[in-house]
Amino acid sequence: MMKEIILATHGRLSEEFKRTVELIVGATTNIRCFCMTKEKSEDSAKEELEKLIQDSNEDRLIVLTDLFGGSAANICAELLMRGHHFRLLAGLNLPMLLTILTMDNDEISTNNLIEESLKAGSEGVLNVNNILLKGSD
Amino acid sequence: MMKEIILATHGRLSEEFKRTVELIVGATTNIRCFCMTKEKSEDSAKEELEKLIQDSNEDRLIVLTDLFGGSAANICAELLMRGHHFRLLAGLNLPMLLTILTMDNDEISTNNLIEESLKAGSEGVLNVNNILLKGSD
Repeated sequence: MMKEIILATHGRLSEEFKRTVELIVGATTNIRCFCMTKEKSEDSAKEELEKLIQDSNEDRLIVLTDLFGGSAANICAELLMRGHHFRLLAGLNLPMLLTILTMDNDEISTNNLIEESLKAGSEGVLNVNNILLKGSD
Repeated sequence: MMKEIILATHGRLSEEFKRTVELIVGATTNIRCFCMTKEKSEDSAKEELEKLIQDSNEDRLIVLTDLFGGSAANICAELLMRGHHFRLLAGLNLPMLLTILTMDNDEISTNNLIEESLKAGSEGVLNVNNILLKGSD
């Protein structure tokens, strides 16, 4: 079974990440989005995000948030502390999300997949000037 | 003088990053966006991005791209190899962009600002489950 993915961010960044990544890998069926927009109260945000998570199989649910300490990440952390057991990452970028989508298969465990995803996310943060300089040595 | 920022990504991710970060820090005046959409030919994309860069003061220009090896990052790398001298980062995420916007001032050099931004970007990629586990030790 494919892992389940929830993108949970400020604004509509989550929806645009979904649209943009689908330009690269094609349509997906396992990504849902939560948008922390200005119009949403904290209570309605909590309710909506909790419902998205409850409707998942948490054993294979990975929630990707934009910012540790941000609204969506805080709501998710609270749910984990109340006994939920999905995986929660912060610092969402395209390498992180692309890695999850392209490496996911029936054999890879959720833990291994998030390790690969975290690695791709942090190693994908690059100073390209330095890479070009090294290449021209 | 404030640094100049260009967000250059697949799809409309750059525009949504701008909108979303402005929900957090308020309106900005130093961010421009380039969107590599399906409709754009490679030639027109190159032309558009080169124009954005030529209209900048490259000494204080930082271009943030979504993915090393992706279209926007490749076009920018080509411009650097042809003698342009802006700063080019990959792996755009919210901690990276927020750090640039909140640490920028007249005293900080462009090089120091991108070092801080790269650090925030890679260190912002986090396994939140592990942080919560450590917190409960």
